[in-house]
Amino acid sequence: MGELTQPPAHVVTAVIDRSLTEDLGRAGDITSAAVVPTGIQTTARIVARSAGRVAGIRIASQVFTTVDADLTTTIAVDDSDDAAAGATLGTVTGAARSILAAERTALNLLGHLSGIATATRDVVRAIEGTGARVVDTRKTTPGLRAVEKFAVRAGGGANHRMGLDDAVLIKDNHLAVAGSVSQAVTAARAAVGHTVKIEVEVEDLDGVVEAVEAGADIILLDNMTPQLMQDAVALVAGRAVVEASGGITPDTARSVAETGVDLLSMGWITHSAPNLDVALDIDL
Amino acid sequence: MGELTQPPAHVVTAVIDRSLTEDLGRAGDITSAAVVPTGIQTTARIVARSAGRVAGIRIASQVFTTVDADLTTTIAVDDSDDAAAGATLGTVTGAARSILAAERTALNLLGHLSGIATATRDVVRAIEGTGARVVDTRKTTPGLRAVEKFAVRAGGGANHRMGLDDAVLIKDNHLAVAGSVSQAVTAARAAVGHTVKIEVEVEDLDGVVEAVEAGADIILLDNMTPQLMQDAVALVAGRAVVEASGGITPDTARSVAETGVDLLSMGWITHSAPNLDVALDIDL
Amino acid sequence: MGELTQPPAHVVTAVIDRSLTEDLGRAGDITSAAVVPTGIQTTARIVARSAGRVAGIRIASQVFTTVDADLTTTIAVDDSDDAAAGATLGTVTGAARSILAAERTALNLLGHLSGIATATRDVVRAIEGTGARVVDTRKTTPGLRAVEKFAVRAGGGANHRMGLDDAVLIKDNHLAVAGSVSQAVTAARAAVGHTVKIEVEVEDLDGVVEAVEAGADIILLDNMTPQLMQDAVALVAGRAVVEASGGITPDTARSVAETGVDLLSMGWITHSAPNLDVALDIDL
Amino acid sequence: MGELTQPPAHVVTAVIDRSLTEDLGRAGDITSAAVVPTGIQTTARIVARSAGRVAGIRIASQVFTTVDADLTTTIAVDDSDDAAAGATLGTVTGAARSILAAERTALNLLGHLSGIATATRDVVRAIEGTGARVVDTRKTTPGLRAVEKFAVRAGGGANHRMGLDDAVLIKDNHLAVAGSVSQAVTAARAAVGHTVKIEVEVEDLDGVVEAVEAGADIILLDNMTPQLMQDAVALVAGRAVVEASGGITPDTARSVAETGVDLLSMGWITHSAPNLDVALDIDL
Amino acid sequence: MGELTQPPAHVVTAVIDRSLTEDLGRAGDITSAAVVPTGIQTTARIVARSAGRVAGIRIASQVFTTVDADLTTTIAVDDSDDAAAGATLGTVTGAARSILAAERTALNLLGHLSGIATATRDVVRAIEGTGARVVDTRKTTPGLRAVEKFAVRAGGGANHRMGLDDAVLIKDNHLAVAGSVSQAVTAARAAVGHTVKIEVEVEDLDGVVEAVEAGADIILLDNMTPQLMQDAVALVAGRAVVEASGGITPDTARSVAETGVDLLSMGWITHSAPNLDVALDIDL
Amino acid sequence: MGELTQPPAHVVTAVIDRSLTEDLGRAGDITSAAVVPTGIQTTARIVARSAGRVAGIRIASQVFTTVDADLTTTIAVDDSDDAAAGATLGTVTGAARSILAAERTALNLLGHLSGIATATRDVVRAIEGTGARVVDTRKTTPGLRAVEKFAVRAGGGANHRMGLDDAVLIKDNHLAVAGSVSQAVTAARAAVGHTVKIEVEVEDLDGVVEAVEAGADIILLDNMTPQLMQDAVALVAGRAVVEASGGITPDTARSVAETGVDLLSMGWITHSAPNLDVALDIDL
Repeated sequence: MGELTQPPAHVVTAVIDRSLTEDLGRAGDITSAAVVPTGIQTTARIVARSAGRVAGIRIASQVFTTVDADLTTTIAVDDSDDAAAGATLGTVTGAARSILAAERTALNLLGHLSGIATATRDVVRAIEGTGARVVDTRKTTPGLRAVEKFAVRAGGGANHRMGLDDAVLIKDNHLAVAGSVSQAVTAARAAVGHTVKIEVEVEDLDGVVEAVEAGADIILLDNMTPQLMQDAVALVAGRAVVEASGGITPDTARSVAETGVDLLSMGWITHSAPNLDVALDIDL
Repeated sequence: MGELTQPPAHVVTAVIDRSLTEDLGRAGDITSAAVVPTGIQTTARIVARSAGRVAGIRIASQVFTTVDADLTTTIAVDDSDDAAAGATLGTVTGAARSILAAERTALNLLGHLSGIATATRDVVRAIEGTGARVVDTRKTTPGLRAVEKFAVRAGGGANHRMGLDDAVLIKDNHLAVAGSVSQAVTAARAAVGHTVKIEVEVEDLDGVVEAVEAGADIILLDNMTPQLMQDAVALVAGRAVVEASGGITPDTARSVAETGVDLLSMGWITHSAPNLDVALDIDL
Repeated sequence: MGELTQPPAHVVTAVIDRSLTEDLGRAGDITSAAVVPTGIQTTARIVARSAGRVAGIRIASQVFTTVDADLTTTIAVDDSDDAAAGATLGTVTGAARSILAAERTALNLLGHLSGIATATRDVVRAIEGTGARVVDTRKTTPGLRAVEKFAVRAGGGANHRMGLDDAVLIKDNHLAVAGSVSQAVTAARAAVGHTVKIEVEVEDLDGVVEAVEAGADIILLDNMTPQLMQDAVALVAGRAVVEASGGITPDTARSVAETGVDLLSMGWITHSAPNLDVALDIDL
Repeated sequence: MGELTQPPAHVVTAVIDRSLTEDLGRAGDITSAAVVPTGIQTTARIVARSAGRVAGIRIASQVFTTVDADLTTTIAVDDSDDAAAGATLGTVTGAARSILAAERTALNLLGHLSGIATATRDVVRAIEGTGARVVDTRKTTPGLRAVEKFAVRAGGGANHRMGLDDAVLIKDNHLAVAGSVSQAVTAARAAVGHTVKIEVEVEDLDGVVEAVEAGADIILLDNMTPQLMQDAVALVAGRAVVEASGGITPDTARSVAETGVDLLSMGWITHSAPNLDVALDIDL
Repeated sequence: MGELTQPPAHVVTAVIDRSLTEDLGRAGDITSAAVVPTGIQTTARIVARSAGRVAGIRIASQVFTTVDADLTTTIAVDDSDDAAAGATLGTVTGAARSILAAERTALNLLGHLSGIATATRDVVRAIEGTGARVVDTRKTTPGLRAVEKFAVRAGGGANHRMGLDDAVLIKDNHLAVAGSVSQAVTAARAAVGHTVKIEVEVEDLDGVVEAVEAGADIILLDNMTPQLMQDAVALVAGRAVVEASGGITPDTARSVAETGVDLLSMGWITHSAPNLDVALDIDL
Repeated sequence: MGELTQPPAHVVTAVIDRSLTEDLGRAGDITSAAVVPTGIQTTARIVARSAGRVAGIRIASQVFTTVDADLTTTIAVDDSDDAAAGATLGTVTGAARSILAAERTALNLLGHLSGIATATRDVVRAIEGTGARVVDTRKTTPGLRAVEKFAVRAGGGANHRMGLDDAVLIKDNHLAVAGSVSQAVTAARAAVGHTVKIEVEVEDLDGVVEAVEAGADIILLDNMTPQLMQDAVALVAGRAVVEASGGITPDTARSVAETGVDLLSMGWITHSAPNLDVALDIDL
């Protein structure tokens, strides 16, 4: 309880295999093969060049052992822990050739996921004490959704739906066709299973009222001002979960969170967070 | 000639299939299935919310036709063209259900690749007239290397090696084992085929001289000051391609380029460029 | 709205490809290749040998066109419609060799899914008027879950969760570890995203009260007598969805449904329903 | 010799991977992740709730160790052995989280295959002493043919051809095109390799005679009365294997077998046998 | 009837996709992309540089249309026809870039398969009139068995078993364990289905007699002299198919065939036949 | 350094998995399953029936351990070593059933790759002392390029480009479109990255001069006489690598090499080298 849940093993394995294949190509690490004798053993340290929240250190370790099952790894700063600039996150020991062949793939994954975790953590901290949670969106990097959503959790955020198939989210385009919020929610309730929640995106307070009364489980306030959000929260009065969305930045997050909404969803924590700068220090 | 080369079809198809599967899951777009009748037809516009360089509009079009072969698409702003804020990049026409099911996957790819192209273009512009080129690195998002390197080309940059297997790059760790630059280059030349170039990373002017004399095709200047780079270029005197690397930012790029180096390689254009903000406007 | 949602295209395509590969092996349909000249054209009718509810006729059509894109198919009795014994469900026209090569794979899928749809329909009819719905479980045939759950919908049933990842279902084993229903629900609420519902399995009325008060979205009554179920429904009083489960048969379904529960979940409609007898009548 | 042959490892691995992926999805077992601490260890017993013939216990064990290589399993009732109601078939020991994540997939496979083995065994017993064997057909569940045919062997039955490519079976549709049984057999003999057997389906005694004289290896008697079958057996007089097919039920099997045919083929043992009721008893 | 059977579509598609991916890599045909403008159209002729038997011309055509669905192809010399040196086997018309990208993959497959067909044809001709047939073995190139066995058929040969799973072949190693030929055949008969033939490898005349009396369907004479083979044929007296194997060359084939054996199996036609020299003539 | 580089692990694993699946099919090694009891253990020797250069012995070992992780293997003659006729190359110990199931796949790979290595070695020896190297082409067996190029290295040869994407090779067809050698090289230089070499195929001495002056890295002399080659080498005068190609045979190789060219490229070492005769001796 409270433990961070790693992404499913089959997802992680597929990401790692695909990434290694992409980097090693048809001929493998030809530089190390030419220059580094097979017998050379070493220990390398995975290091954070700047401070941040770690996500993907276990995945990075698995990259090394995928390339060479005889490599051994240790973890010094685990997923969802904070690392100081210069901190050693973990080590890998074994054949230098294998470590060099895995290095870039391991660092690419670790830097990418830690970048997301760090961005998430920063927003989580910015709204601390308000009772609101930071959640992600489906604006993720193609092929990496499950691991990016893991990074969001490592940053202290929570996950929105994983795909188009595990929750209903009725937006303005759907409403244009469905006729009314009420008709759309009714249609959705009839069509989907009882384990599926229904969320409705609304743009004004009339929409909020209509959605709540139609029985929506979650109300998405799209691009509203903080004042409108506060009114919306009051109107909902606990009858549904309230999510704020649309152009929220780290700077505006706190003012949004203070309106009393339950959730702030932000696409940029997954699609635009810069990498955390990580490197491999090898002593040869 | 001068035409932009799209990534190989098998790579694009694999990326699209993987991304759609990830988003549609086991049950597909349950919202549209519940709310949008199958007969509804519409036209949607792919719009750039902010200005930038486009990359991935053809890939995005293919996402739509992959979901539904009966959708038709047009392209208004092609790959490697610049788009103004608010510009329509293309359109898609057909069943509303299909368009909605493909929307997020298409936009995620387009926004991600256009973000890279835009970042690349901005550096290319910053060094215009210097004769230097902007090149990428292997610090790419796992699973997307070939399409990200396409985005770099769309931004006016050029590509470094595609993987560990298509060029030799001898770094400090290799040198520690190999003994000397000269020995390392000789070993590499003996080991790899005649179509493979050899690049050597050096940290000072002695290294530059040694690498050139060993017959390296490319000299990588790692984290040198502009003054040192200038000296290095003079020492190389055209006998090898000279690449500057290490912490180059858009702000420092021009001063680096003016040292006379042939290439500036930058990891952040692929690993940390923010998405270009793109959206789908549907009239239903 | 009210339309039956087909399973996602990528799922159907994968099932069909896998099934055809399994049947055609390394050498293909050697009998037809030896005996049926390539030029022979014919029309075959897909026929229901016994009465039942159809599911998979569109998938069966796709099997034929997968084997040979020049085959043309028609559908006479669509998915979720009832067929009389002897009814023609659809036709396929084109090269006899192609039709014969696809026949068994098409019929295996159609017969299997229609068997599930028919079993589901029969229970749905048995509880007609009670207000309860029939839902499936995760007791599905490995590799076919998404298409079997489609067949349940075609039979008039609804779907329970698609996998372990899209809803929380806390059972007795979990409770043994978690300490109490209340603690388990609280832990789950903290761990999962806001789009995920929480269901709790209970075995007596104390459990029912505890689960409702802990805020469970759905209460699963496990193996209770109709009398106990009726009491449970009264205790819940609309504060949660109530699902009955455990050994419900077509014979007992109505008495269960009349207790006022919202849902009856039954594993046997997917794991033990007999095939509907379907065949291909070819005139050569 | 006499040992049961397990299905090929690559087939079993593919079935297990596909099934686990289907159940664990993008986020894995979110219930156990939320409620069961990673440190909890336990032992669970795989139990038969009703009596039957076991098939798939080794596959089920592999499901557990696929999810977590640190789980250990034991087998108490092996494949092709009979289990009493309530019998413990095997055990699994290790992390409770891993056991719970694998449970449903393991049971679905075990219950499905044991259902087939049990149905097969019952027919085998019904015809004991007659000299006839029970064989399956190609009416199998898509994607599971090789493991279902293994279950038939576990039930004491034998396998018909594995696909369209490993034996010739000339049916009425083929004969309509080929002209005559004799021409069809001759054409097949010329077209296929010497390791491939040729079977011909016939509907009357004339067909039997013609097929035997044409040199068919196996004669398939389609939907004949027992009396006709007996006459057919007499006419064949050992010159070919004789297989009875078409609507044979457990009730009619013995009367068919007593006609002297060599084989009874039955589709329902694979496509319509109900699951054997198996469960996992965990003490937490 | 008498028509050549192409390998199954799923096999051919997999071979082509794998081969193109292998050649096009991560960046595609970079030469043509740099030098050949997208608008250039042309027609190219597939030409046999030396005389031989064609196999794979349809597969080669499919390679071109796989790279670019807008290419059109014609076939002048079809599979299993003989081509003179210099003959045009077919043409491909369309974008020059696409033709160049597909060229090598198409030719590699065509040249390889035609080499096998030509070698097979030559042996078939050498034994013409003897009544014996040329058959292949399982000594095929990994990953290409089904298409290589197709090439053998195109050369006028017939196929031995496709894999370890579709016929029994008892060799000396098996006999060492089984005790006797008789025991081995009995064990095999009991273990495998009725559609599976049983072949026994023997090394002397005692073995021949024992195998025939044990009921083997096929007798494999391993490395016998022609005189011994003739005696073996006499001993078998039509009770089983007789196959000669072991070191048969084109030079010795006729003397082997004249012993009266039914089949000559030769590994070298698949594992050691030189490519047929084929090329693409493009007029640009 | 000087060590032979094995092909990347993911390539080898894919080749092995595909080959085993192809041979074992849906039912596995039915002969051994029927005749060889599971408990039988043995040791088998991998033997070269004729003399040659070994390539693939490690891959063959991996085939055995892929089939059964409990098999143990030893290597007596390693990759790139020469074996005498009759030499034991390695051994495998463990369950007889597993060894027999893996035998053919292991031998097919070993024989094929050793055939290529042997052919390469023979040409390498023929030109010993001339300073020229033997290189392969893209005329490889579909699906096996990376392992065949490994075999060429094991034979003492070097590798040409791995695919269309890792080096530019401008041929006559390209030149017809590009206008001139100079224009083509300039276009290529602008289009490809700085790590990519540019090779130009020329047919006469004018072409040689033009290509060198255009800055080509490598000059391919196509089908020239030895005299012309010698002149070409003189004209190039060390400014580019010189490769001879076109119809070079083992007999003509030395005269070509003596012209002073750097490289001889030969397609037949990969597409037409006969298998090395290898076998498995089992004592049961």
